[in-house]
Amino acid sequence: MEKSRRRGRPGHDQDAVLAAAVRLFNTRGYDATSMFDVAESLGITKSTLYHHVSGKEQLLTMAVDRALDGLFEAAEAALREESAATVRLKDLIRRSVLVLADRLEFVTLLLRVRGNTAAEQHALSRRRELDRIVTDLVKQAQAEGGVRADVDPATAARLLFGMVNSLIEWYRPDRGAPESIADTVADLAFDGLRHRA
Amino acid sequence: MEKSRRRGRPGHDQDAVLAAAVRLFNTRGYDATSMFDVAESLGITKSTLYHHVSGKEQLLTMAVDRALDGLFEAAEAALREESAATVRLKDLIRRSVLVLADRLEFVTLLLRVRGNTAAEQHALSRRRELDRIVTDLVKQAQAEGGVRADVDPATAARLLFGMVNSLIEWYRPDRGAPESIADTVADLAFDGLRHRA
Repeated sequence: MEKSRRRGRPGHDQDAVLAAAVRLFNTRGYDATSMFDVAESLGITKSTLYHHVSGKEQLLTMAVDRALDGLFEAAEAALREESAATVRLKDLIRRSVLVLADRLEFVTLLLRVRGNTAAEQHALSRRRELDRIVTDLVKQAQAEGGVRADVDPATAARLLFGMVNSLIEWYRPDRGAPESIADTVADLAFDGLRHRA
Repeated sequence: MEKSRRRGRPGHDQDAVLAAAVRLFNTRGYDATSMFDVAESLGITKSTLYHHVSGKEQLLTMAVDRALDGLFEAAEAALREESAATVRLKDLIRRSVLVLADRLEFVTLLLRVRGNTAAEQHALSRRRELDRIVTDLVKQAQAEGGVRADVDPATAARLLFGMVNSLIEWYRPDRGAPESIADTVADLAFDGLRHRA
């Protein structure tokens, strides 16, 4: 255990525990990370760690819920707006990008989850619910004539989130302010790459 | 070892070995998969397996190269065309989608590679080379006026491939013919979701 790597009062704060766990899950993989590894990276003992959380699966659940809660809040905020479905869809994309930039490590973990445990199944089922919300909004936007009708709504939703989710592969603060990236993604999603005079 | 799961003449064919390994790497994870697991899933002994490949890292290299070779061939075929950069870019997207649909399990593995081994570093460096090719083509398409100039070319390339690569999350043959999905992706990339009268 390297004392020099301890910062602040690690281990006294559930956020710090969660951040340390997610970092290890993302770099070494969930299966390859033990509770001992998490405790060690925080400079605390395993028994202190167990005062904070019941085990590795709880850490995974908390971490993916942090991502999913943010994405659901973004979707719900967009849906609540009193504007056309097309405007709400574009806003949902923008808000989702902001969540990814803000909770990048949590979303990275979420997107790697494969359904091997109950916690992972729970995460996959919440992801499917999000997919349905986006697909429904695409349908509404098509019905009101704002979104082209020649694209299958579920496929459109998946491709939109392909763009949004790609942030976990490449986003870094030095590659642009989150707001500016969010505008670019929403703009490309609606108007594409083509130059229009 | 379940004899009933043996099909054809497994183990006598390097393609079958590679397909079995990739399936296990994708479901269990690379680290959690042993050469014994690969041999068992083929119904052959570990020593027979070692007649075909030198080890797990060679299987990983062969698998990610299968994905990367396909993507490079797609890019090179698009670049060779005697047409405007804008047309070649759209074609590169289309051809890349076809490679993903055709080599889905190999690309899935490729996109999960994190650089923990020499084989993974090699794959990441080839991916970066592809990114450069696409970014350069976006720049050319901007220079000739076919692609809007207000988007950073590297960001555009990453978002385009976010859409393309999302296929590993959702593509199944019953969700559309590869050619039709490829047209949809290329079309959305260039013209966006917006309905145009």
